[in-house]
Amino acid sequence: MKQDPQHAFGAGEPVPRLGEIGLYNFAPYLMNRIMGRYNASLREEMAEFGLSTPKMRALAVLSVIDGIQISQLSVYAVVEQSTLSRALDQLMAEGLIRRQPDPNDSRVTRIVITDAGRAAFERIWPSMARMYRRMFAGIADDERAAFVATLQKMLRNIRKHEF
Amino acid sequence: MKQDPQHAFGAGEPVPRLGEIGLYNFAPYLMNRIMGRYNASLREEMAEFGLSTPKMRALAVLSVIDGIQISQLSVYAVVEQSTLSRALDQLMAEGLIRRQPDPNDSRVTRIVITDAGRAAFERIWPSMARMYRRMFAGIADDERAAFVATLQKMLRNIRKHEF
Repeated sequence: MKQDPQHAFGAGEPVPRLGEIGLYNFAPYLMNRIMGRYNASLREEMAEFGLSTPKMRALAVLSVIDGIQISQLSVYAVVEQSTLSRALDQLMAEGLIRRQPDPNDSRVTRIVITDAGRAAFERIWPSMARMYRRMFAGIADDERAAFVATLQKMLRNIRKHEF
Repeated sequence: MKQDPQHAFGAGEPVPRLGEIGLYNFAPYLMNRIMGRYNASLREEMAEFGLSTPKMRALAVLSVIDGIQISQLSVYAVVEQSTLSRALDQLMAEGLIRRQPDPNDSRVTRIVITDAGRAAFERIWPSMARMYRRMFAGIADDERAAFVATLQKMLRNIRKHEF
């Protein structure tokens, strides 16, 4: 294995083999297992609200960061731009979002959530909150806080965009 | 929001709203962002080896848990059975795995990795290890261990299967 001192693992040692780490100690494996189950459960619940995963994620992001461009929304929602674009068309047809030209640069379009969009998010949030609560059942607040702090470092380590 | 004492959050309080938690403190959001980037980067690297994500994941799991049934492999690899089935056909055609009837129950088929399959995994593991190292750059061993312990609890909280 090629050694890379800039991204040294632990005290500069190479990463052990997967069989040595063990599948249940390999964080990317656990994270894919957990998020695979979380996303599948949420997809089933959202279908009852007529919302696909891209539509649900777009609404969730816009409920907290409104008026962003589609390229940014694509990163925040973790949905590819072509897929997101179709989802936004549907959300617009349903009156849940609007596309609005930037007042300072007419070439830039910003995505704005409508009051009906906020109300739709309010209806789905209890499902998301229930899944979140279930995920952290029996895990103390300080452990959850430490976990989130590690996630924030990991995102800074691997993200492509500065947000 | 409906309260659910069995899955109480923190000290039995309801989950605050997403805007109150903040996107960058909401663990499922961070985990989807991180794994979206990790999986996309790995997909690009694996394409150079002629391996799709389902094929790569099947090889990775079989390199540590050999001789399992397709239904189990589907859970471990986080790949739907129909998609996994096609990936296994390709891996078999390439001589990287074999399907083998269970000696005790001929109705059961077990998936076995071949020597060529192990060699193929050895070739891709350095890429996976490099991504893993990058993900945890600057994160101390004890912090990583605590993080993994929390992930193990979360998986027990939300998994459907007892493994």
